[in-house]
Amino acid sequence: MTQGTDRLKALSDGVFAIAATLLVIEVAVPDVPRGDLLSALRHEWPSFAGYAVSFAVIGVLWVNHNATVARVVVVDRGLLFWNLLVLGTVAFIPFPTALVAKYLGDGGSNATSATVGYALVMMACAASFATLWLYLGRHRELLAETCEPHAPQVAVRRALGGVGAYAATALLALLDPLLAVAAFFLLTVAFVFAERPAKV
Amino acid sequence: MTQGTDRLKALSDGVFAIAATLLVIEVAVPDVPRGDLLSALRHEWPSFAGYAVSFAVIGVLWVNHNATVARVVVVDRGLLFWNLLVLGTVAFIPFPTALVAKYLGDGGSNATSATVGYALVMMACAASFATLWLYLGRHRELLAETCEPHAPQVAVRRALGGVGAYAATALLALLDPLLAVAAFFLLTVAFVFAERPAKV
Amino acid sequence: MTQGTDRLKALSDGVFAIAATLLVIEVAVPDVPRGDLLSALRHEWPSFAGYAVSFAVIGVLWVNHNATVARVVVVDRGLLFWNLLVLGTVAFIPFPTALVAKYLGDGGSNATSATVGYALVMMACAASFATLWLYLGRHRELLAETCEPHAPQVAVRRALGGVGAYAATALLALLDPLLAVAAFFLLTVAFVFAERPAKV
Amino acid sequence: MTQGTDRLKALSDGVFAIAATLLVIEVAVPDVPRGDLLSALRHEWPSFAGYAVSFAVIGVLWVNHNATVARVVVVDRGLLFWNLLVLGTVAFIPFPTALVAKYLGDGGSNATSATVGYALVMMACAASFATLWLYLGRHRELLAETCEPHAPQVAVRRALGGVGAYAATALLALLDPLLAVAAFFLLTVAFVFAERPAKV
Repeated sequence: MTQGTDRLKALSDGVFAIAATLLVIEVAVPDVPRGDLLSALRHEWPSFAGYAVSFAVIGVLWVNHNATVARVVVVDRGLLFWNLLVLGTVAFIPFPTALVAKYLGDGGSNATSATVGYALVMMACAASFATLWLYLGRHRELLAETCEPHAPQVAVRRALGGVGAYAATALLALLDPLLAVAAFFLLTVAFVFAERPAKV
Repeated sequence: MTQGTDRLKALSDGVFAIAATLLVIEVAVPDVPRGDLLSALRHEWPSFAGYAVSFAVIGVLWVNHNATVARVVVVDRGLLFWNLLVLGTVAFIPFPTALVAKYLGDGGSNATSATVGYALVMMACAASFATLWLYLGRHRELLAETCEPHAPQVAVRRALGGVGAYAATALLALLDPLLAVAAFFLLTVAFVFAERPAKV
Repeated sequence: MTQGTDRLKALSDGVFAIAATLLVIEVAVPDVPRGDLLSALRHEWPSFAGYAVSFAVIGVLWVNHNATVARVVVVDRGLLFWNLLVLGTVAFIPFPTALVAKYLGDGGSNATSATVGYALVMMACAASFATLWLYLGRHRELLAETCEPHAPQVAVRRALGGVGAYAATALLALLDPLLAVAAFFLLTVAFVFAERPAKV
Repeated sequence: MTQGTDRLKALSDGVFAIAATLLVIEVAVPDVPRGDLLSALRHEWPSFAGYAVSFAVIGVLWVNHNATVARVVVVDRGLLFWNLLVLGTVAFIPFPTALVAKYLGDGGSNATSATVGYALVMMACAASFATLWLYLGRHRELLAETCEPHAPQVAVRRALGGVGAYAATALLALLDPLLAVAAFFLLTVAFVFAERPAKV
């Protein structure tokens, strides 16, 4: 028994919305009963940067997911599970975000570990999109007739490009964690602006 | 490829619902194993006030978002990203709420910092609505034919009015944080009642 | 401009789902690195009871909300705000649940304060349903034509009955907090079974 | 008054999405200001395993729930409450997951208690599906005409099989908690692959 995309969309939108909104829980409220709240907040800039970058990343992934599911007309059991793999990696993003927020300011090897961890989770997200589109490429009966014939190959290639870009960022993090965080930010901004505007 | 407003609404309703409901997590359960719970709860009134004000603020923003999206018939990639900016600022509200809840009772400069922080996030929320409507004003093909011709200008002007009102509250917070919190509350109540009832 | 009930339902279902699911966060994982986890878990029974009672209460309120909105065909601005009042009280339930979970086992006046606090929030929930139905009773143009003519009066009276029942439980909590928690449980069970089955 | 499955699906998708996404909150960010983050993360492998297993379990339960509700055309009050029982057990999964994540590495009797607790919650989940299908078996007027006549019996039997399998895992946990966690993982994987692919 196959079915439409309604509940797949509902669960997915729920997970994306929650993963993005949970990020704010990881922004710690400074505990300075007698200290200076303003300077404590300034000191916490990696938390704010982490919130902004990860919210943007989850937003970009949601836009991608949107563009994927908009091309699907029928859902089968396999697609549900490959989609759950995407959701499971996206829902994990708040954890490496919290790692970076906590350890980036320390510099040193812990900042590197946190940033490499973040890059690994991003690589897993991009890879999960690649497997989702590989499955769709082999099950074209699930895709809309209006879907471009080369869409699966193009999408897999772009997703693997994402894996590569984040792998390069992981290497950058070995040199300088701050540069790697800037690269995460630029990669996300590039995605927002570089895309052909006609393609939702 | 354009699309309807379904998934934009679903993600947005999810983020608004979660941001509002997460507020309760920031209301700390007093830890008074041998003390007096009742007086500890009384002492915590800024947390309760913060919950009420922020829930109302998020509710009002959701009603605004509703009125915006009700006028949209087609969604393009740009609108998705400007909408994500709105969601990213709304989803951040629990953080300054927790700051105010924790530091308002202390008085002094930390109470001021917390309240100014709250005002800044409110300003960002109002500004994000302004940019969303600026985009819609330049892309009228996304708006319903029944949408009032001047709706984008009116909405941008009202959003900028909101930025101004919250900026004034930030100045008020420099004088007296408690007054500023009262102003946040009154601004929200004013919005609920002052609006012409015919306009959802 | 009026609108259908779609987004009101989406936001409401989101808030009910999140409020219910957040309850599990308040069930503390015992911290007994060298102690006995099993007896620590047994000691935590008020947390488990609180989870069960509050999940059931939120479920019952959701069923009520369902029955309310099923009778509504058009949403205006006023209804959005009275509905937000319902959501704001429901979304607060995890807080008094955590209070009861933490202090019920202590007995004494703190257990009483926590249980009375729980009853007060329940009274606010029931009262918010009463105001929602009062509004619907004065704006019958929002109700479906198939809606029973006396539905608003009946619903207001039942909601006020709920306020009264929880007020009685608050008095009971002054005598014995444990009995009051049992009464919360029985009130919920009674609601599930006493209702005429034909009425969703 | 009966109704369609829309809001039941919306609440259910919300609870499944939140329960799955909340799992990440239970993955603790290591607190090693001067220590080695990398080895702290390695030490935390039970948290990562717990996240993966529980996300997969909730995903599988959601696929099951999907297949159930796809066969329902009309919702009555009883079904709403039996469905709430399913949601209440699923939403509790983050708690035993956190227990296992915290105590599995300790070995000894606490690891056993945590793993048995996990198995008990899984048994409750499977049992709640059995009661849901028992109800549907007695109220066939709620099921679609296209629903296979033996679907309720088959589903109840499979759900009770799940109860039995998790009971066996609980016994295994008395011998070796690590083996039991491996069994949780294998049971979930088996479910994903063993199912006839034609049945969503």
